[in-house]
Amino acid sequence: MSDIHNRIAASFNEQGLMATIGAKLALVSDGEVHIALPYSERLSQQHGYVHAGAITSILDSACGYAALTKAPSECDVVTAEFKINFLRPALGDHFLAIGRVQSSGRLLTICTGEVRAFSGPGSTHKVVALMQATIVNVGQ
Amino acid sequence: MSDIHNRIAASFNEQGLMATIGAKLALVSDGEVHIALPYSERLSQQHGYVHAGAITSILDSACGYAALTKAPSECDVVTAEFKINFLRPALGDHFLAIGRVQSSGRLLTICTGEVRAFSGPGSTHKVVALMQATIVNVGQ
Amino acid sequence: MSDIHNRIAASFNEQGLMATIGAKLALVSDGEVHIALPYSERLSQQHGYVHAGAITSILDSACGYAALTKAPSECDVVTAEFKINFLRPALGDHFLAIGRVQSSGRLLTICTGEVRAFSGPGSTHKVVALMQATIVNVGQ
Amino acid sequence: MSDIHNRIAASFNEQGLMATIGAKLALVSDGEVHIALPYSERLSQQHGYVHAGAITSILDSACGYAALTKAPSECDVVTAEFKINFLRPALGDHFLAIGRVQSSGRLLTICTGEVRAFSGPGSTHKVVALMQATIVNVGQ
Repeated sequence: MSDIHNRIAASFNEQGLMATIGAKLALVSDGEVHIALPYSERLSQQHGYVHAGAITSILDSACGYAALTKAPSECDVVTAEFKINFLRPALGDHFLAIGRVQSSGRLLTICTGEVRAFSGPGSTHKVVALMQATIVNVGQ
Repeated sequence: MSDIHNRIAASFNEQGLMATIGAKLALVSDGEVHIALPYSERLSQQHGYVHAGAITSILDSACGYAALTKAPSECDVVTAEFKINFLRPALGDHFLAIGRVQSSGRLLTICTGEVRAFSGPGSTHKVVALMQATIVNVGQ
Repeated sequence: MSDIHNRIAASFNEQGLMATIGAKLALVSDGEVHIALPYSERLSQQHGYVHAGAITSILDSACGYAALTKAPSECDVVTAEFKINFLRPALGDHFLAIGRVQSSGRLLTICTGEVRAFSGPGSTHKVVALMQATIVNVGQ
Repeated sequence: MSDIHNRIAASFNEQGLMATIGAKLALVSDGEVHIALPYSERLSQQHGYVHAGAITSILDSACGYAALTKAPSECDVVTAEFKINFLRPALGDHFLAIGRVQSSGRLLTICTGEVRAFSGPGSTHKVVALMQATIVNVGQ
C-alpha cells in the first residue's frame, strides 16, 4: 500500500482546490480514504455552517481516491457522478470525509462515503452527509 | 423580483465559500439563478481542470437560490440532496452554473441545473455537468 | 432509424417486465424513446396511485433505449445507475415515460427523462417524475 | 414493534405492484425492512436477468417501510427521491431487498439499501444494487 499511498498523496497535493479549502489527506488504505477539513469562515454558507459544496468536495475526493486504490496501476480515475444527502447542518470544529469502495469492476467502481462532524476534543461525531458515487477507470 | 434579487444577493455575499472560490451571482429571475466562476489554478484537480467540488459548489448554490425565488417569503431553503453527472472535463476560461426550478410545493422544491464551460470570448459553451436537486423550505 | 427502431422493438418485446406491467413502446427517434403505460390496479401502491417502482421501470427502459439509439451498432447498453425524483402522486388514466440523451461518449451515455400523467382524453399532462441516468455501452 | 409490523403488512398487502411481481414482506424491525422476490421470467429484461425496474421496486418499498418504522404514528410516508446503482446483472433464484434508516428527522428520513441475489440453497449472496433514498413524512 505504500506505493498507492505515495501516488495518492502526490495527486492530492496537485489538487489546487484541496489546498484552497484547507483539506488534508488523513488516511489511505485498501479501498478506503479519509480527508480532513478544519472549520473556516472561508467555507461558510449564509448561516455560518460549512457550505454543502465544501463538504461535497472533500467527500468526492475521498471516494475518488478510494476507487484509485482498487484501479489497475496503469489507470487513473474520474468521477462520473455522485449523489449526496445532507443529514443536518455542517456544524463543527473539523470534519472527516470517508470514502469506501463497495464494488470495483474493470471499468466502474462504486463507492459510498460519509462526512463526520466533530466539535471539541474527544467528542463523538455526527454524520452530516452520505454519498453514493460512480467512478470510472481511465487510461492515463 | 427586486426584493428577491436583493435578498439573494445579500445571502450570496454571506457565503464565505463563494468568495473563497471567486464565484459571482450573475442572474436572478423567477425560478432561475445563474452563478459565474472564472477559472483559477486554486480550483484545480490533479490534471489542472476545475475540481468537481468547485463545479458542484456553484451549481448547488444556483439550484438553492432558484428554489428560494419560489419559496414563501418567510422561509429559507436548505439542500436536502442532489445528484450530479460530470459529462466531460471542466476545461475553460470561465464557467456558468444555471439552476432552474422544475416543481415547487409547500415543502419541497425540485431543481435541475447545468454548468457551462466557455473558452475565449464569443465562444460557444459546452455543458460539463448536470444536476437534479431536492431543496427544502424551512422556517427562518 | 428503421434498423434501430426494429432492434429496440425486438429487445423491448423480450423484456418480460414490460409485458407484466402492460407497458408499450410508443416512440423511437434519434436520442429519444417513449414508453406508454395504462393505469392498472395491479401497479398500485397502498393508496391506489401507481407505485414508484412501475413509474421507475418504464422510465429506466425509456432512458436505456434512448441511449441505445446513440450506441455503436455492435454495442448493447446497461444502466449503471439513475436518480429519480417523484414530484407528485402518480394519478392518471395513462402515463408516458420520455427518455432523452443529453450526452453520449464512447463508454457512457447520460440521459434525462420524465414521466407524464394524463387523465381523460385531450387532457394536458402533469409531470410526476424526473430522472437522470448513466448508461454504459457494453460489447454484445 | 408488533403494531408497526401489522401496519406495514397491511399496507404491503394493498400494494398491487408487490403482488403483481411476486414480492413478499420478509422482515420488519426497528429501522430495517426486508422484502423477498423469487426469480420469474415475467420480471426479466432483454437478456433474461431481472429487470432493474423490478429490483428497484422492491428496494424502494423496503426503504419506504423502513422509514415508516421511524415515522410518528399519525404519519404516512412517501418517497421523495432515490438513487440506485446496479453493481452487476441481477442473476439468481431469489432476491432480498434490505432497506435501513440512516437518519430520521421530523420531516425527512434518509435510508440506504441493497438488493442481494441468491443462487441455490445455502448459497452466499452477491449484492446487485445499492440505493440511497429520501422519504418524507406526510400527515395521513
